[in-house]
Amino acid sequence: MTIPNDATTAGALALPQPYLLFLGDTTIPGYAKTAFGLRDWAGDRCVGEFALPGATVSAGLTPMTPAEAHAKGARSLVIGVANVGGVIPDSWIAGLIAALEAGLDIVSGMHARLGDIAALREAAERLGRRLIDVRKPPAGIPVGSGAKRGGKRLLTVGTDCALGKKYTALAIARGLRARGIDATFRASGQTGIMIAGAGMPMDAVVSDFLSGAAEMLSPDAPADHWDVIEGQGSLFHPAYASVSLGLLHGSQPDVFVVCHEPGRTDILGHPGYALPSIEAVIEQTIAMGKRTNPAIRCGGISLNTGALSPEAAEAEIAAHSERLGLPAADPIRGGPAFERLLDACLS
Amino acid sequence: MTIPNDATTAGALALPQPYLLFLGDTTIPGYAKTAFGLRDWAGDRCVGEFALPGATVSAGLTPMTPAEAHAKGARSLVIGVANVGGVIPDSWIAGLIAALEAGLDIVSGMHARLGDIAALREAAERLGRRLIDVRKPPAGIPVGSGAKRGGKRLLTVGTDCALGKKYTALAIARGLRARGIDATFRASGQTGIMIAGAGMPMDAVVSDFLSGAAEMLSPDAPADHWDVIEGQGSLFHPAYASVSLGLLHGSQPDVFVVCHEPGRTDILGHPGYALPSIEAVIEQTIAMGKRTNPAIRCGGISLNTGALSPEAAEAEIAAHSERLGLPAADPIRGGPAFERLLDACLS
Repeated sequence: MTIPNDATTAGALALPQPYLLFLGDTTIPGYAKTAFGLRDWAGDRCVGEFALPGATVSAGLTPMTPAEAHAKGARSLVIGVANVGGVIPDSWIAGLIAALEAGLDIVSGMHARLGDIAALREAAERLGRRLIDVRKPPAGIPVGSGAKRGGKRLLTVGTDCALGKKYTALAIARGLRARGIDATFRASGQTGIMIAGAGMPMDAVVSDFLSGAAEMLSPDAPADHWDVIEGQGSLFHPAYASVSLGLLHGSQPDVFVVCHEPGRTDILGHPGYALPSIEAVIEQTIAMGKRTNPAIRCGGISLNTGALSPEAAEAEIAAHSERLGLPAADPIRGGPAFERLLDACLS
Repeated sequence: MTIPNDATTAGALALPQPYLLFLGDTTIPGYAKTAFGLRDWAGDRCVGEFALPGATVSAGLTPMTPAEAHAKGARSLVIGVANVGGVIPDSWIAGLIAALEAGLDIVSGMHARLGDIAALREAAERLGRRLIDVRKPPAGIPVGSGAKRGGKRLLTVGTDCALGKKYTALAIARGLRARGIDATFRASGQTGIMIAGAGMPMDAVVSDFLSGAAEMLSPDAPADHWDVIEGQGSLFHPAYASVSLGLLHGSQPDVFVVCHEPGRTDILGHPGYALPSIEAVIEQTIAMGKRTNPAIRCGGISLNTGALSPEAAEAEIAAHSERLGLPAADPIRGGPAFERLLDACLS
């Protein structure tokens, strides 16, 4: 099941579809979350994947060249992998130019602007193709006001990056819609924006405007409407906590769900930085979040149990729920535990 | 006593010195705060001042033309005044071009970019001079690593914006140097950058790189060296808390000093947002700051008592110190209370 297009937020991009997913020469699955997100939530709009020699990561789609993808209807190559710092390595350039020559536009969510790479810019101009940076924030973002807005808001937060905040928000928005509730997934990162067709690339916003960008992302709404907002980073992340805090303050969530991957011990890419406890994340999120919404509360826990057997996952979910006194579920597995989590978020 | 030139931050902004202070045609002293700050804290690196006809405000330096300033060693003209809206009026252009023609670069902390003014851009290109916007971050800021760096660090934090975090850091750096301690003022905003001749405009940094920018601002140093870092915003500010958190995480302070203005009740520009208590600021700063420096502690309180009589100021300082069980002082007033605050920061 895919997520409907919610292209109702200022700054929305219209991306050429279907996509060919580009995996570069990546060997670390955690860096391919864009590709996995598009496969899972916009799979009907992905014709295949394209990897360079040396890559060991796959999204499980049919491997094909850019020319084969174009013949199957693809209209853009989406860069489905990230690097630390968001740079485009030299080793990718020839493959990206091959895509332009095959008739595909290029869509990127990386920090580096496609058009800043001379070889890509020249090839795109020569071939009449587009270079689309999803990470470029819209113009005119205001300073945050802190003013209360109408409607209900749920924010996913986490013990780290890359462990399920986007998937959890997508699944909760889908679950609320399945109950007949008017709910909108709000994307705060590049993959989410590609899935939803709209959103705010929070980590690319100039810091003075972070809260204002989050306020813009989930605008005033009817009292019974739910915005389900994709979280970013973690308040405990040594590099990205400020993005998390700007999103928390500007989102003014009524409810937050803590996302966690059982078994992860250290912050991804920062060995030696121990993962915070879920209890610590709940405490800090309430302590900071009550500044802009004094009624903020934790709705429950979302566990990424993708690496576990069904039995082990069920045991982890039960153990976390009992220890914390809160509903816990893996939204990707769904089931009664997930329905109880939705109940708690709505209560 | 002025603060020494600390233009040693790798990769951060570094400004050509000494300065000629430009006062425009300003008639309102409140608009010349930058010039007064430079006079007070970088007076030995200001060769004189340059005002246009109609100006009634003086920083008390020797009046001179750009050519005279260049002959006395000046290497840049610093715009020391602000206008409503942060624009550069047409009436300034001829004077600024005269400075470029005299061999001076131009340094601006205004919102408007110097290079966006065609006449200035063309003159600078023709003459081979630089237009330096202090609000524009340097290129190549990395993602924060969270890695421990050598040396000691002190960060000023606050209950709000615009209540003395820069002056407190300047005064503490001066006080430590007066004791023979190797201390460096690290500027995180435009006026501080002009005073120090180097620094990082934190509020203009893209949010993903905030902690990395703060790490760059206070690099690895000898074990007995102190960086005294100018704080930004407040962890409780509904618009700017994320800037404060990125600076806190990246600075990894051993000691922080809480800056407060007695009598201020609401966040500046956000009526209805009550000022946090000093106790709450201490608690949150430790809770968040211990993530990158588990040894973080509060060194004391800096009170901005500029609006009070000497007797009322002394009473406020004593009352805060007794209530909190911490040294409190107004660094601008100095005296034994300030020396006790320095003792506590060093202990």
